[in-house]
Amino acid sequence: MPEVLPTDSVGLVSPQAMTFQQPLALESGATLAGYTLAYETYGELNAEHSNAILICHALSSNHHAAGFHSMEDRKPGWWDTCVGPGKPIDTNHFFVVCSNNLGGCHGSTGPASVNPATGKPYGRDFPDIVVKDWVHSQAQLADALGIECWAAVVGGSLGGMQALQWSIDYPQRLAHAVVIAAAPHLSTQNIAFNEVARTAIKSDPDFHDGDYYQHNVIPERGLRLARMLGHITYLSDDSMHAKFGRELQAGSPTTGFDMEFQVESYLRYQGSKFAGEFDANTYLLMTKTLDHFDPAKEYGNDLTRALKQAQTKFLVISFTSDWRFSPARSREIVRALLENNLDVVYAGIEADEGHDAFLMKIPQYLEVFSAYMQRIAAETAAS
Amino acid sequence: MPEVLPTDSVGLVSPQAMTFQQPLALESGATLAGYTLAYETYGELNAEHSNAILICHALSSNHHAAGFHSMEDRKPGWWDTCVGPGKPIDTNHFFVVCSNNLGGCHGSTGPASVNPATGKPYGRDFPDIVVKDWVHSQAQLADALGIECWAAVVGGSLGGMQALQWSIDYPQRLAHAVVIAAAPHLSTQNIAFNEVARTAIKSDPDFHDGDYYQHNVIPERGLRLARMLGHITYLSDDSMHAKFGRELQAGSPTTGFDMEFQVESYLRYQGSKFAGEFDANTYLLMTKTLDHFDPAKEYGNDLTRALKQAQTKFLVISFTSDWRFSPARSREIVRALLENNLDVVYAGIEADEGHDAFLMKIPQYLEVFSAYMQRIAAETAAS
Repeated sequence: MPEVLPTDSVGLVSPQAMTFQQPLALESGATLAGYTLAYETYGELNAEHSNAILICHALSSNHHAAGFHSMEDRKPGWWDTCVGPGKPIDTNHFFVVCSNNLGGCHGSTGPASVNPATGKPYGRDFPDIVVKDWVHSQAQLADALGIECWAAVVGGSLGGMQALQWSIDYPQRLAHAVVIAAAPHLSTQNIAFNEVARTAIKSDPDFHDGDYYQHNVIPERGLRLARMLGHITYLSDDSMHAKFGRELQAGSPTTGFDMEFQVESYLRYQGSKFAGEFDANTYLLMTKTLDHFDPAKEYGNDLTRALKQAQTKFLVISFTSDWRFSPARSREIVRALLENNLDVVYAGIEADEGHDAFLMKIPQYLEVFSAYMQRIAAETAAS
Repeated sequence: MPEVLPTDSVGLVSPQAMTFQQPLALESGATLAGYTLAYETYGELNAEHSNAILICHALSSNHHAAGFHSMEDRKPGWWDTCVGPGKPIDTNHFFVVCSNNLGGCHGSTGPASVNPATGKPYGRDFPDIVVKDWVHSQAQLADALGIECWAAVVGGSLGGMQALQWSIDYPQRLAHAVVIAAAPHLSTQNIAFNEVARTAIKSDPDFHDGDYYQHNVIPERGLRLARMLGHITYLSDDSMHAKFGRELQAGSPTTGFDMEFQVESYLRYQGSKFAGEFDANTYLLMTKTLDHFDPAKEYGNDLTRALKQAQTKFLVISFTSDWRFSPARSREIVRALLENNLDVVYAGIEADEGHDAFLMKIPQYLEVFSAYMQRIAAETAAS
């Protein structure tokens, strides 16, 4: 709990929600009869509406990117490191929007929402959602907020993929895309890890084929396993070693099989915490959305062709120890952008923190990110 | 099913079992009142008893290292690539012994065996077993077989760790140790993956706190998840890509969330197959044994000191794409051996196959391994 809010914080923020009454045609062919997007905003939209930044969140995150919901809040939003006065996404300059993805479980319409056709939660009947659908729904949010063109669409991990998709689908509606710790599509190994997580959830007897809401249970065991596994892939081998090594948990016996390593109780704690907070159907949906993301697919698996219509300027950032979406995956994106003669800055950051580095206070990263965003701020001030 | 047995096969083999009536004092302080080791042998023990090779198996393997149990057998033993006439462990020269580790589920005394004290399966009451206990029980098997000194103790992965432990505990009883794709102890990440697997098994409602035998069920869901996860860590990102890429399973829809990647059905198949064959309590035990393996621990975390008493000659092999036990981990072992002025050959093999490379037909690997074993054959012939 911050007794006094930090001066570089956006301070107390309130989630908002925008409900769209018109049906949303999805890429799958299905239609969503109206939907709600939960979102937050930080900073002020300028008179020209030229200083708006869209933040896209990662797999298990949400619209609460920065600041605190109350003075009792123990932790700020998930990207507070990068969003706030004087931070890379400087709220003294920018009007920042972050929305919970469609299919999410933090206020946007998702599998736990009531299906107007049945009066019950959608559950497994919630339609398939792909990244294009997120972008499309966010464009409607932009319309509603009076934002014709984003100064930048920014995201890490799955959020970076979303920024990339924005540059393909709405080339006129963003000046810059910032694509951090992302990949042009998931590797076989990435898909394999997701499938283990999904199998854990679906094989939990409390899953009830996705209709656990009616049974007043949650597939807690499955979600816990999914999160434990995810967590390993977000950290590097080195960062896990530095954080825990082979140290024993306090109170653990020092010999015998009851001996417990710190990393074991840490993972179980993270898993249990997550299971109490996140909807299992949303986790299934988001991992499927990730697996299916592959903008090159409809262009003969040629990413360069997929990005032909992009007119955006790009900042691409990767981290050396990220083995989930390695620097080589970012360079695939950079290569395709360069082949289209697009304006691209690429920063391969030396960092031990693994995939989660994009959330962390890593000086070299924050400097590169800040410098690039200041360039955007200068452009929007001049326009 | 081989209609005709391959000429480089050890042919039809029969598992054997040796029962020891005397109690076995375990490292934990507990005592096992008698025990059985299942084992197989290939080739002939020479008159001097100088040509015996002990093969130590990996986590989920067993004593069936080579050959076929019947003409209907569809697959040979797990290390048939390396064991047989003319193969690296050449049964024309060597008498080969491979035993199922204590705590196993393929004939050796383990959690599924009947506890003489209760008349019921041990279940969770089976004592903690560490690698030293395996070595100790194998030394008793060696005594019973009339083998005073092994020409070599050989193993990959956990089996390599066991070979290393042999060199520490019985320096006079092996001339060579062959340590393949191993590590001096598990990394934090290795332990983390094991803990996810254990949590999957223990949180399966059919686990019944380890007493599932009495309930006539097996924790099939948990075992399947454990195996799926293990499998990912045994392969490299590159080998998974080469094997499956983003190819779809035959019969899969080409769009929508019902679309299925080949890697997904492959993993589920491997998981289900394993769950029908392997005992969950043994899986818990073996992963704990792995986590606890750390010969340097009682020597102030100094591996060089731990290996001071070793008198063995060593072959250490690693594989470039092995991210479970990376080449750097093998080099830690090599460094400690060299600091003790031991005779060591180290081969870092270029291979895309990940950790499982030690089981595979990789020419450079088989050549190095063969050459080293031929040197041992020459020594034993001369002795």
